[in-house]
Amino acid sequence: MIRVVKIGGNVVDDEELLVKFCRDFASMEGEKVLVHGGGVMASRIQEALGQTPKMVEGRRVTDSDTLQVVSMVYAGWCSKHITALLQSCGCNAVGLSGCDASVITAVKRAPKTLSDGVTVVDYGFVGDVAPDSVNVPFLKMLLSAGITPVLNAINHDGRGNLLNTNADTIASSVAVALGGELVYCFEKRGVLYDVEDEESVIPVITPDRYSELKAEGRIAKGMIPKLDNSFGALRGGASGVTIKHSGDLLSECGTRLTL
Amino acid sequence: MIRVVKIGGNVVDDEELLVKFCRDFASMEGEKVLVHGGGVMASRIQEALGQTPKMVEGRRVTDSDTLQVVSMVYAGWCSKHITALLQSCGCNAVGLSGCDASVITAVKRAPKTLSDGVTVVDYGFVGDVAPDSVNVPFLKMLLSAGITPVLNAINHDGRGNLLNTNADTIASSVAVALGGELVYCFEKRGVLYDVEDEESVIPVITPDRYSELKAEGRIAKGMIPKLDNSFGALRGGASGVTIKHSGDLLSECGTRLTL
Repeated sequence: MIRVVKIGGNVVDDEELLVKFCRDFASMEGEKVLVHGGGVMASRIQEALGQTPKMVEGRRVTDSDTLQVVSMVYAGWCSKHITALLQSCGCNAVGLSGCDASVITAVKRAPKTLSDGVTVVDYGFVGDVAPDSVNVPFLKMLLSAGITPVLNAINHDGRGNLLNTNADTIASSVAVALGGELVYCFEKRGVLYDVEDEESVIPVITPDRYSELKAEGRIAKGMIPKLDNSFGALRGGASGVTIKHSGDLLSECGTRLTL
Repeated sequence: MIRVVKIGGNVVDDEELLVKFCRDFASMEGEKVLVHGGGVMASRIQEALGQTPKMVEGRRVTDSDTLQVVSMVYAGWCSKHITALLQSCGCNAVGLSGCDASVITAVKRAPKTLSDGVTVVDYGFVGDVAPDSVNVPFLKMLLSAGITPVLNAINHDGRGNLLNTNADTIASSVAVALGGELVYCFEKRGVLYDVEDEESVIPVITPDRYSELKAEGRIAKGMIPKLDNSFGALRGGASGVTIKHSGDLLSECGTRLTL
């Protein structure tokens, strides 16, 4: 069974946590894929270059200068630093963007009307991916050669353009395409019943329980797209979804989602 | 027969020339590998970030900040931009750094006494590569799957560190390791007898002729490492070496080196 693990920009930006995570990930038996972010560093480099990072509803508005920065940060430093760390732990990793062997093809997002129903946003070089965007034969060729793909959020449209996509969606799309288990690592120990209490991890969430938790206001704004993505992955054919802390990869904790 | 083509930072930084080059490269029949630089853009980004690029005897002194920039530029923007362009021309390319499936392992360069015999330079995160640094089975696996490797100068030491290496040496090492033909593309139409006269391309250079040309002062400073590299590749087992303009990839011009 293939595991698809996603880590966010906060892990990628914390050297100590990243090194521990890479050691844990490398020691995981079986076929696996890593998907990583890098947004914290991207914003820092944008600012150092005199650009102003602009986020709308959690997505980075990506003009051509921003595209250059996110490509440099995600596909350059983050991808190669993580891959080199994994190699040093005995994991034969390969850092890939979507253009590489066309492993993921994205579709440029059309200007979008926001949830207020009025504001229209052109996200620029932002793309969307879906399970059928994934080049399964290429991933399987690598996996059967004992090679671990490390994917970042830079994908391409097949017409020569790079597009900035969402790493959570890449992870869920790859898990669905491979029928694998999805593991979202983030900065909490799981989905918390009380956001102030790290001990209040909810061990299992079903779609009904998810509706209740949303109705109670227990599930916060940022978690909703992650959980929607996760249930979408389960419905699409992923064999399981777990949400846990990046430091807990090898332990049986966190929140498990089931249908 | 596998061809290993190298382009420099001047092509990578000239969008019109790069697009033409990618179209030509994509249309080349047979197995092929591309090796690219990106030094012009790296210096520009270093300056925009307030760093001062420091070159000693043609190599960039690479402290940890510089390493981050060259990794971002070569392995991030340049590698993915070129790969996406090649994909749009029907060439199934994959952009790789040395850490990716450990395709090239480099050795960190020890502090070096310069040609003046006095100055000692610590190049920092600079590495050297050799034909035995190349992971031939992995390259052959890609080539036989119809995939074209696109290599950049960021390699790793296998212990978790990235190293900045020389793209000319990567190209010659890969050509030797694969027994392929090496094609160095640069900004001149070949090795010129008179550096002021673009029409004075020397069609063939043997080692004896090379010694004469050096003695006459016809071969300029910057060309000496390139030609030394080239003859080294031929002696090591590369099946041929040609030096030509990046715009002339498909034509039978340029300077051919023979033993």
